[in-house]
Amino acid sequence: MQHKNGFQSGSQNGDLDFTSCDAGNGCLNKNNFAKRWDHLLSKEAITRQGSIFQAMHGTLVDPAILSLGPGAPSPEYFPFDHTSLQVPSAREIAVLGPNYAKVTLTANKNDTRAGRSDYDLSSALQYGVGTGARQLLDFMTEHTKQVHNPPYQDWKCVITGGNTSALDLALRTFTDRGSYVLADEYTYATAFECASPLGVKILGIKLDEEGPIPSELDRVLTGWNEDRMESKKPHLMYMVPTGHNPTGATQSLERRHEIYRLAQKHDLYILEDDPYYYIQLPANVSEHVEDVTQSIPFSVVPKTDLLPSLLSIDTDGRVFRMDSFSKILAPGLRTGWVTASSQVVERIVRAHETSLQNPSGFSQIVLYKLLSETWGQEGLMSWFSHLQVEYTIRRDALLRACQRYLPAKVASWKVPRAGFFMWIKINWLLHPLARQIGQRGVEMQIYDTAIKAGVLVVPGTWFQPDPSIALLDVFFRITYASLRPDIMPEAVERFGEALRSCFEVLD
Amino acid sequence: MQHKNGFQSGSQNGDLDFTSCDAGNGCLNKNNFAKRWDHLLSKEAITRQGSIFQAMHGTLVDPAILSLGPGAPSPEYFPFDHTSLQVPSAREIAVLGPNYAKVTLTANKNDTRAGRSDYDLSSALQYGVGTGARQLLDFMTEHTKQVHNPPYQDWKCVITGGNTSALDLALRTFTDRGSYVLADEYTYATAFECASPLGVKILGIKLDEEGPIPSELDRVLTGWNEDRMESKKPHLMYMVPTGHNPTGATQSLERRHEIYRLAQKHDLYILEDDPYYYIQLPANVSEHVEDVTQSIPFSVVPKTDLLPSLLSIDTDGRVFRMDSFSKILAPGLRTGWVTASSQVVERIVRAHETSLQNPSGFSQIVLYKLLSETWGQEGLMSWFSHLQVEYTIRRDALLRACQRYLPAKVASWKVPRAGFFMWIKINWLLHPLARQIGQRGVEMQIYDTAIKAGVLVVPGTWFQPDPSIALLDVFFRITYASLRPDIMPEAVERFGEALRSCFEVLD
Repeated sequence: MQHKNGFQSGSQNGDLDFTSCDAGNGCLNKNNFAKRWDHLLSKEAITRQGSIFQAMHGTLVDPAILSLGPGAPSPEYFPFDHTSLQVPSAREIAVLGPNYAKVTLTANKNDTRAGRSDYDLSSALQYGVGTGARQLLDFMTEHTKQVHNPPYQDWKCVITGGNTSALDLALRTFTDRGSYVLADEYTYATAFECASPLGVKILGIKLDEEGPIPSELDRVLTGWNEDRMESKKPHLMYMVPTGHNPTGATQSLERRHEIYRLAQKHDLYILEDDPYYYIQLPANVSEHVEDVTQSIPFSVVPKTDLLPSLLSIDTDGRVFRMDSFSKILAPGLRTGWVTASSQVVERIVRAHETSLQNPSGFSQIVLYKLLSETWGQEGLMSWFSHLQVEYTIRRDALLRACQRYLPAKVASWKVPRAGFFMWIKINWLLHPLARQIGQRGVEMQIYDTAIKAGVLVVPGTWFQPDPSIALLDVFFRITYASLRPDIMPEAVERFGEALRSCFEVLD
Repeated sequence: MQHKNGFQSGSQNGDLDFTSCDAGNGCLNKNNFAKRWDHLLSKEAITRQGSIFQAMHGTLVDPAILSLGPGAPSPEYFPFDHTSLQVPSAREIAVLGPNYAKVTLTANKNDTRAGRSDYDLSSALQYGVGTGARQLLDFMTEHTKQVHNPPYQDWKCVITGGNTSALDLALRTFTDRGSYVLADEYTYATAFECASPLGVKILGIKLDEEGPIPSELDRVLTGWNEDRMESKKPHLMYMVPTGHNPTGATQSLERRHEIYRLAQKHDLYILEDDPYYYIQLPANVSEHVEDVTQSIPFSVVPKTDLLPSLLSIDTDGRVFRMDSFSKILAPGLRTGWVTASSQVVERIVRAHETSLQNPSGFSQIVLYKLLSETWGQEGLMSWFSHLQVEYTIRRDALLRACQRYLPAKVASWKVPRAGFFMWIKINWLLHPLARQIGQRGVEMQIYDTAIKAGVLVVPGTWFQPDPSIALLDVFFRITYASLRPDIMPEAVERFGEALRSCFEVLD
């Protein structure tokens, strides 16, 4: 875990130095470096300068030099002397599942000087660096190596302010006003809400149950007419490959390879937004637990092998992978991490320096204490197994409720293999007024009727990047993430009532 | 404290509603509303849409509605059950100064349901809203009312990710590529490092010891030639009015009024970046404490009356005031607050929704527990008095050391009335090679010689927004914020040695 990621005094406008193979994150079997992406960078990204102050901070590494330089307040004036936190013990998670015991972590101002920790409150609450805290970055880099092991030498991680912030910075790094970005025909709404004010247009690629259809992607790019589209051929594609929001689709390994080959063919750079990666669930719905208020013992549900990410097949360094703590620990941490080639990560670090700077020190020290000092790499994987068990219980409760309460003629769905969402397809042509009110009329009526029946479900059109495109189908997104399994049947029953009422179905 | 700032279901693209005088933040004596700034907004800001999901979250206020909607993880899967924090007791600060006693604050997951607090860990660690947490926002709004009392009705606060993040969003809200922003001839370096990648140019206004010179500001704007400058007349001015970084200047009240009148004359919108506002210090240097390792008793240093901010004289709503917790509590909180007219704050909230979303929940709950539940408004003001005492001790230690160790012919300075910095003017013409190496040569030699002598000081040119402009003088910025008062004399003595060596001065 001796990665050299704390590059606060790194070179300006250039790559981070790689002086030895060891710095290349386990490069023994990798001879290739990432491709250069200069030709894809935005005007903004090209002109991001490293701060002249970075050099000054470098000087301060020498303890013999007294500082009249940076205007950093003295830690004795931080009114936080000591913080403690109760968390699950990782060893216990593996044995006991949700009945884990708890341990208390503490952080004091001067733990580092006292030899008690590599990271203390004085440091966490001081100004930081655009990479995020080195101590946390080291842990996440090691984690990324163990899980994804990107097949090129010069990859790096950077701690971010969560995936929405990372996406904002990625779009500012790779697009200028007027560019097109490829995404899915239904996609995470914040992605296009983030792109639109930047003057960036989203073009949706048709989906099947494994995500974007390769032949459609190839057709759009091969046939791109710059005059007709009034824009250059897109060089950026945004995707949520695992537990897709909103459709719940997970790209198979073969699909990932097909998309990656097309990205190589068309010089596409990929934004892999993967917050649900660790919430991969078994294919088969568990039938053995009838009373969903009872937890399944931890050992009953088999561990799910994690599908390889796009990053893990990325020989060119053309993937910008965004991971988030929001779904796996807590959204309020507002923290995540990005993995990409050194060139691209350096541009993001520069962007951090003139925007969020780095995530909250409280978030960073809490994560460091929990992950690095308490759980370790194995403990974190145990926590993911725990979440997989819990979300399997919830998914299966939702699926059983759908089978029981939704009218089969009207509603159909696939079993989601990851994430938080089920995508309910509505056979809208069965609606008595189908021809008069059309797809959108049917969708709106169902939404309103469901609210009146006391349940909130999300209309598919809310996920359409371009609402002017006519859609053939009607969908609703429903989630198993937020309701307790014992309440879910009631919610689905209400949705079923709403559908029956709209479609005048009796059975 | 019944402000209605939690406008998560506010109108899209419009103002926040003000349905009663009470919502106008104490508007009994104010009949005026802020001017509209539509004509100054950037392309990006104009096209920021409110998320359609905001309406959905509004629906969930009704407890009768079961949610299959937002993909928010269930708080039972946040692995943080309990957190506690040791902080100074505010009552004690006022009596005992730095020898304050400590109290322990605690937050649990379900404090709100249990009636123990208005804000708990489940809420802080869940997804939030672009305004920041309502509970913290209420406190900062009340604080802003008590301290600044903006003289128009429809002002609002929003919790930000600190002043660098707020400045990034402000520039994106008020500038397009190619625009000019006015600032000072020497200014906070991050401001121009933030502007430059956005394609925004900074034009520096000449300074005196009270900040930007009004006649210079008027001259630049009156004589603006769009053809020659290849850009429209600027409509935005950035300033650090109190304890200016790097010059230490503080604008007098009369200067603030002059600048505001010119802003009205030229339709300038003002970015008031004021992180040192609460670090206002007495004018007279204390002579009565010789041993600077001993603290001055709290009661010895008179309380400093705070100068009115630009916000507090802003009848038009043309000031975007940025406050930060970095200098007054801790930089690692990465949290601050902005005050501006409702129209502008709404645009920032929309920008938050597609970037940082909201500050870390850990930062927010820590601030809420400390400020709202422990210190209260008066306690926070006591803390500022405590900081004023401490920084007065440090400033005075630095001043005495400068008097003692810097060669009087070569170095001169003014006593800073606020902030962290002293601005040392170097009589560079006395340098033996002045004519050969010029100002920059002298500056560089001093910097290098100081480092060799074991002290870091910051060259004035590092704060020049446009380094191509020739400067007449040589300056160094030094800070009293980071070194202990007993170490400061040694640091200044080294700087003095460096100056003597460069200038071949013996006395």
